[in-house]
Formats: sequence, structure tokens, C-alpha cells
Amino acid sequence: MMEEKIRSVKEEGNMGQGQAQENTEISFPYLIESLQNHELDQFRHEFMTLHSYDQAQFFLKVDKGLRTVIYQFLSPEEMADIFENIEIDEEDYQSILTEMDLEYASSMLANMYADDAVDVLNELEKEQVATYLTIMDEEAAEEIKELLHYEEYTAGSIMTTEFVAISANQTVRSAMFILKNEAPNAETIYYVYVVDEERRLAGVISLRDLIVSDDETMIHEIMYSKVVSVSVGEDQEAVAKKMKDYNFLAVPVVDFQNHLLGIITVDDIIDVLDEEASDDYSKLAGVTDMDTVDRNPFSAAKKRLPWLIVLLFLGMFTASLIGRFEDTLNKVAILAVFIPLIGGMSGNTGTQALAVVVRGIATGDLEKESKWKLVAREAGTGIITGTCCGLLVSVIVYVWQGSIYLGMLVGFSIVASLFVATLAGALVPLLMHKLKIDPAVASGPFITTINDIISVLIYFGMATIFMDYLI
Amino acid sequence: MMEEKIRSVKEEGNMGQGQAQENTEISFPYLIESLQNHELDQFRHEFMTLHSYDQAQFFLKVDKGLRTVIYQFLSPEEMADIFENIEIDEEDYQSILTEMDLEYASSMLANMYADDAVDVLNELEKEQVATYLTIMDEEAAEEIKELLHYEEYTAGSIMTTEFVAISANQTVRSAMFILKNEAPNAETIYYVYVVDEERRLAGVISLRDLIVSDDETMIHEIMYSKVVSVSVGEDQEAVAKKMKDYNFLAVPVVDFQNHLLGIITVDDIIDVLDEEASDDYSKLAGVTDMDTVDRNPFSAAKKRLPWLIVLLFLGMFTASLIGRFEDTLNKVAILAVFIPLIGGMSGNTGTQALAVVVRGIATGDLEKESKWKLVAREAGTGIITGTCCGLLVSVIVYVWQGSIYLGMLVGFSIVASLFVATLAGALVPLLMHKLKIDPAVASGPFITTINDIISVLIYFGMATIFMDYLI
Repeated sequence: MMEEKIRSVKEEGNMGQGQAQENTEISFPYLIESLQNHELDQFRHEFMTLHSYDQAQFFLKVDKGLRTVIYQFLSPEEMADIFENIEIDEEDYQSILTEMDLEYASSMLANMYADDAVDVLNELEKEQVATYLTIMDEEAAEEIKELLHYEEYTAGSIMTTEFVAISANQTVRSAMFILKNEAPNAETIYYVYVVDEERRLAGVISLRDLIVSDDETMIHEIMYSKVVSVSVGEDQEAVAKKMKDYNFLAVPVVDFQNHLLGIITVDDIIDVLDEEASDDYSKLAGVTDMDTVDRNPFSAAKKRLPWLIVLLFLGMFTASLIGRFEDTLNKVAILAVFIPLIGGMSGNTGTQALAVVVRGIATGDLEKESKWKLVAREAGTGIITGTCCGLLVSVIVYVWQGSIYLGMLVGFSIVASLFVATLAGALVPLLMHKLKIDPAVASGPFITTINDIISVLIYFGMATIFMDYLI
Repeated sequence: MMEEKIRSVKEEGNMGQGQAQENTEISFPYLIESLQNHELDQFRHEFMTLHSYDQAQFFLKVDKGLRTVIYQFLSPEEMADIFENIEIDEEDYQSILTEMDLEYASSMLANMYADDAVDVLNELEKEQVATYLTIMDEEAAEEIKELLHYEEYTAGSIMTTEFVAISANQTVRSAMFILKNEAPNAETIYYVYVVDEERRLAGVISLRDLIVSDDETMIHEIMYSKVVSVSVGEDQEAVAKKMKDYNFLAVPVVDFQNHLLGIITVDDIIDVLDEEASDDYSKLAGVTDMDTVDRNPFSAAKKRLPWLIVLLFLGMFTASLIGRFEDTLNKVAILAVFIPLIGGMSGNTGTQALAVVVRGIATGDLEKESKWKLVAREAGTGIITGTCCGLLVSVIVYVWQGSIYLGMLVGFSIVASLFVATLAGALVPLLMHKLKIDPAVASGPFITTINDIISVLIYFGMATIFMDYLI
């Protein structure tokens, strides 16, 4: 997946002129025409010079009829390259695979890198998976079955078993010979892993080091024996962080006895980082799943309504709380005017604190310092922002409404609300992290609504106590 | 930066036992002791087996006194490896560099990969940069000066000039010979770029292909001539997307005449993706900058207050709008009870729509479909979610307050607010994107507050019109 992919779509005529490299939006009228006319040679002549990512883009653009022609024109091996570059919905995988005949689809899956094949199979029905695995070449089926066992989001679920492993007791020359032979099948040949007789990870050496070394040097003399590896059950986010910190192109995956099971390559890690960032982002916004673009308003609404309904009931609870202060409201109706201001401000500060803590946990930046120090700092931040905003509001309300007591009431409510909201925004995700719940679940809207409730209680509570000054 | 970095910190004794690979949190009492006792050999013996990322972690953990000893124990070249792995604040770069003597610091900077040296220099005062560049080895200074010219966030600003370029008219054997010589200085040797006599990009070939090819094969026979490249002024986010799509380990950077200027490696792209995700996330939450963890509440408050003050004035505007309905409120105080519910719900739906559109623009998923289709779909989503929530609210309010008119008023306000809020949440970022403003600037709190205002107008407007039914 990392390799053999440096060709691309830039037209050769363009090359000399050196135009800006905009090739994401290509129109393929010629390719479509040759498909429509069933001109095999013409199609392959043009199509096979494209990068497999662009081949995939083309494949996804044409309709079912033309796709069927493509299956006739391309071998399962060639189709496998394309499929490794495809990211579509569950149902789409299902329907595209059933377009192919069983033999073709099985052979294609067997020819994909095992980790990519597993990604596709995970989207299918169990019976369908079983069918493909029975028909498939036995060796490939075994490899895939092994990977299918690993739990989602673990290192095992994203690793591939197509790597190069050598023993320490050989020369650079013989290692290079092995490399040349395995290059067509390995997902990367740029890191070569050294294992002992029991396939335990003993070292690692980069192709760069192999190339600059003398042919007769022994591998154990030049390999690094302090290998950084990840365990097979490790969370994919932790793996991604490790690869990012160490700038690795690949990392080995081992079991608890240090047996080398597979490797994870940097391209898969980029996808993980992207997924996790999208996930945190969508939770902050209160949308269940933003991985795929919705095709119609119903599927979009389905993802958003669960959050909205929960928030609606929380909002109703807030309403019932304010309802208890109806007497206060009847006497001083002007109080209602400042409800959105106080609620909004505390919601915003809460979201800010939440975002800082959630992101800090995600990037690992917060691991380095004590939790209490963090909470103390957030409390301090809440007092500072609260005091600044509270003073400002007091003055504005006093000037506007001419009542110093109302100004003080609204101002002090802001101070207290912002302090509590900031603290809550920081504490809730920390607590969830402690309880091993994904802190991002404490989404923005949720914290906002909780803080709404708290701020309303503070505001009307104080208004009721100091009622005499307000009338 | 990508290479020579596969060593690590796992202790050798641990290796055989095959323990879980937790090596991010290492204690270095032995290293610290040898620094304190000025034992050069002992320190180097242990320290030089560490991965440079772990060396950097150690370096950042010790105090100034011990750091000064490290400068005596390590050559500027060795220090350069460590510095490439350091990510700290502006002021910290400044103070650490001034700890070193001028010669040492200049030599270290000259030995870093040019793109990393530029990252550091960008954090310093102009005079300080000029001093280092004057003292430095001339060739390195020239390289760095060139890179310093490129605008931040462009391909030019993150590229490096340490790549391997060859001509098409040579054999694989001679290309491998060049590679072996350039390997120690190049940032990656896994992609080799082919240029013509005028250094225009003509092709690319991977080290994998070189290795499996016959020694006497000519480069132009096996190179890919349809190279995907990026132009030097291209936005780094677009570069990252391209590398992610094509699974590249490196991408060439060219000027408008297709001259090869540099390359961008995948490790830098991971940093870009991370930065951009953090950026979008922090804007959704209304925090100016979450790149670095704040050390005290004042610096944290400084980042959050600007947003809060803007939102405070918007909130005041909302308050003044409600103030205009004081008569209505005086007559029907119960109306105030539902203000947070309606405002909160419309804020939440607006944020959802905003997040979907902003993320869609960032990932490029939305580029593929028409904007009008998107707006129509969001409008549909707003009607569906609005109707569902509105009906639910009507029933609850009717049961709770016993007034069918109040139930209808609140329910219909929800329908209208959610529709408008969803549409606004989608339209605002689209409009900003059209106007070439970063759509993420239309942050969550901003959209929330705007929608607060709209919903209040709808709610009280309708309440005033239908007042007779409510009393």
C-alpha cells in the first residue's frame, strides 16, 4: 500500500510546460468511451498509467454497467490495487462486491494487502465473508482470518502480516538478496526486522543502513537491538502517537512474548489520526458520525436527532427549574432579559475548558503534568475570565438599566457561573478519562446544557434572595 | 528526520523477556548521575544508544546546569539530531539557544535538516537569526535563507532541500552509487527524483524499484514520468491531503516552470494534519490557540477572553432584543421559562450543521458535490429535526402547563428556530469558504450566539402577535 504508487495522472504534455499540479479533478472521457466501445487495449493503455488512487476515483465515478466492463478488462490482482484505495459506505462495499462474480471477488480480496482486505471484510455480512474465505486461496485466507480476530481499534486490527523478517546471523549481501525476492509482496521494504529462531523480535535495520553498509558486514553488527514496538492489543491512537513522536515509517507489532506478529505502516497511521481527529471534532459538535457525507436529509437527521432529543429533555429540565422562580419573574420581569447572556457565556467557557482538556488528553500533552495542577489552573482561569466579564457586564447593565443592584446581580452571576462552568468543563472529561470512558463523549452541547442549568440556578437563586433590592 | 531513527530505549535486558513495550515514560537516574559527576564516557555510552526522540525527552527534563554539561559532552552534530525532535514554546527556544555559545548553536543549526532549522529560526528574533546565519557554514546558511523566504503554511515553508536527484540517462547501477553517497545527508532516499539538464522534474523512481531492477537498466526505462508534484506556493493543508490520498512517503515541490525545488516528507505532513485538526477543533470551541499547554491561568485566560468578550457583547445585544419585549414578558412571565430551551436547541443544531460543513470542507469531501445540493440537504435536515423536536416539545409543554396555545407557540418556535439555525450553520462556513476566509473561523460559540438571537426574535415575535391567546 505504501509502495508502487508513485505514478500519477499528470499528463505528459503538461510536464514540459510545468503547469500548476492540479490533478485531483480529472475528466476521463477517453477512458469512458473505450469502456463503452469495449476497446480493451485502448482502455488498458491509458488506464494502467494512472496512479491507483486515480484509478479508484475513476472506478467510483462510472455507473454499474461500465464497472462490469472494468471487471472484464482488469485482472483480480489489478482490481486489488484499486480496491486498496477505495473508501466507501458499508452498503456500497456490499453492492459493489456482489456485482463481481464470486471467484473474481475472492481472488481480488486475496490479492489485497491483508490489512486492507480485512478493512473491506469488516464492512460485510458474516456469511458473505465466510463464502469469500472458503473460495479464496488458502494461504491468503489464513492470513486474513488471523487478522479478523483482533478487536477493532487495536494495533492488531490495523497491522499487516506482509513484512520482511531476517535472521541476525547473515551478511548484508544475503539480506539484500532476501529483500529483492520479497519486495513484490511486502508492504514496506524500508525497515527490515530481525528475529531469532523463535520469531521473537531481536532488532531492526533500515534499508538505508543496508545500502550504505559493506556487503560482507554481519546484520547483528549493524542492527539496532533496542527496537520500539507496540503490543498487539494496544489502542490504535497510542500507536499513532508513538509513530508520530518517533517519525517512523513502520512499527513492529508483537505479542506478550515479543513474537513479531506484523507491522503497521505510516499510511495507515495517517488514516487513524484523521479518524480520531474527526471523531473528537464531531463529538464536540454533537454529531454521531461524520465519517461519511450524508446523501439525504434523513440520514443526516438520524445522526443528529439522538443528541438533540437528549438535549431537549435537559433543556426541559432547565425550563422546569426556571418555572420554580415564576414568582420572582412575575415581580421582576426584566430578569428574563439576561437569561441567554448568562447561560450562553457559561456554556461557552465550559466548552473552551472542555476542548482544551479533551485535546490535551488526545495529544498526550496532559499526561506529563499532574491532574490537580491542571484543575487548579482551570479554576484560576475561570476566576480571571469570570471577573473580567462580570465587571464589564455590571457596568453595562448599570448604565443601560440604571440599577446598580441589577448590575451587581448580573455581574456576580457571570463571575460565579464562569468559574463553575470552567471547572466543570475541565473536571468532567478528566473524570471520564479516569473511568476509562472516552472523554470526547462529554461533548460540547452536553457540557453547554449542564452549565446552562447551573447558571440559571445561580442567577435566579441570587435574584430571589436579594429580591428586595431589585423591586 | 525520517531516517536513522529506528533505535530506541527499550532496555536490552527486557528484550528477551518480551515485556509490553511501554517506553514513553523512562527514568534516567543513571544518565543524570553521570552528568552530575561529569563522567563523559559513562554518559555517552548510555545516551548514544537512545532514539533521538528519547534523547530529546531527556534533554527537556533536566535543568539548565545539566544541559550545559550536555553541550560539553555532545558535538553540535549530535545536538542537531536532538533538536530536530524538540517542540517547545517560542520563549523556550530563545532561552535554550542562548544557553549555548554562539559557535555551538550556529553549528548545530547548520547540521539540522534545513526544514527543521527553519522551524526553529522562525521562533527567534530577527537579529538573533541574522547572527547565527553570519557565523554559520556558508552553504548551510544559503539553504536556510532560501527556505526562510517562503510564506508560512505553504509547501515551500515545510519542504526540505536535502533530496536525491539524478538524470534519466544513466543505469540503475550508477544511480545506486549516487544514492549510497548521498544517503547520509538526504532526508529520504526512498524516492529518487529524475531531473533534466535544467533541473526540471522529469520523473520519479522508488528505491524499491531500483533494488528489484537489473543493474544495467536505464533509469528512463523504469522511471514514472507522470509525477504528482505540488507547487511551492500551495497551501500545506492541500499538500497533506494529496499525500494522504496517494499514500506517498514524500512529494516533490516545484516552481511554476516545473523546476524541482525541494521535497516534503510524510513526517512533516503528519505534523501538518495534526496542527490543522487542532486548529479546527479549537475554533469550534472558541479558543484561540491550543498548540501549547498553558503553564498558568493568565496565559490560558488570555487565549479565551477575546472570544468571550465578543460573545458578551453579542449576548448583550440579545438581552436588549428581549428587553424590547418587556411588555410581553410582564404580561406572560411564563414565557421566560422557555428561553434557554429554544436558544440552546437552535445553538446546538447550528453547531452540528457548522461542524459537518467545516469538516467536509477540510477533508475535501464536499468539493465533489454541488453547494446547492448541500444547502438543500441541510434545509431538509433542519425541517426534519425541527419538526420532530417541535412536536415533542408541544406535547410536553401542553401536558406540563395545560395550555395548548403555549405548547403550540413553543413547539412552532422550535421548528422555525431549528430550521433557520441549521441553514445558518451550513451557509455561514460555505460563504466564508467562497470568500476565501477559513470557514473554521465561524466558530461554534459564534454560530451559537447568532442563532440565540434569531430564535429569541422568532419566539417573542410570535408571542407578541398571539398574545391574546396566551393570557
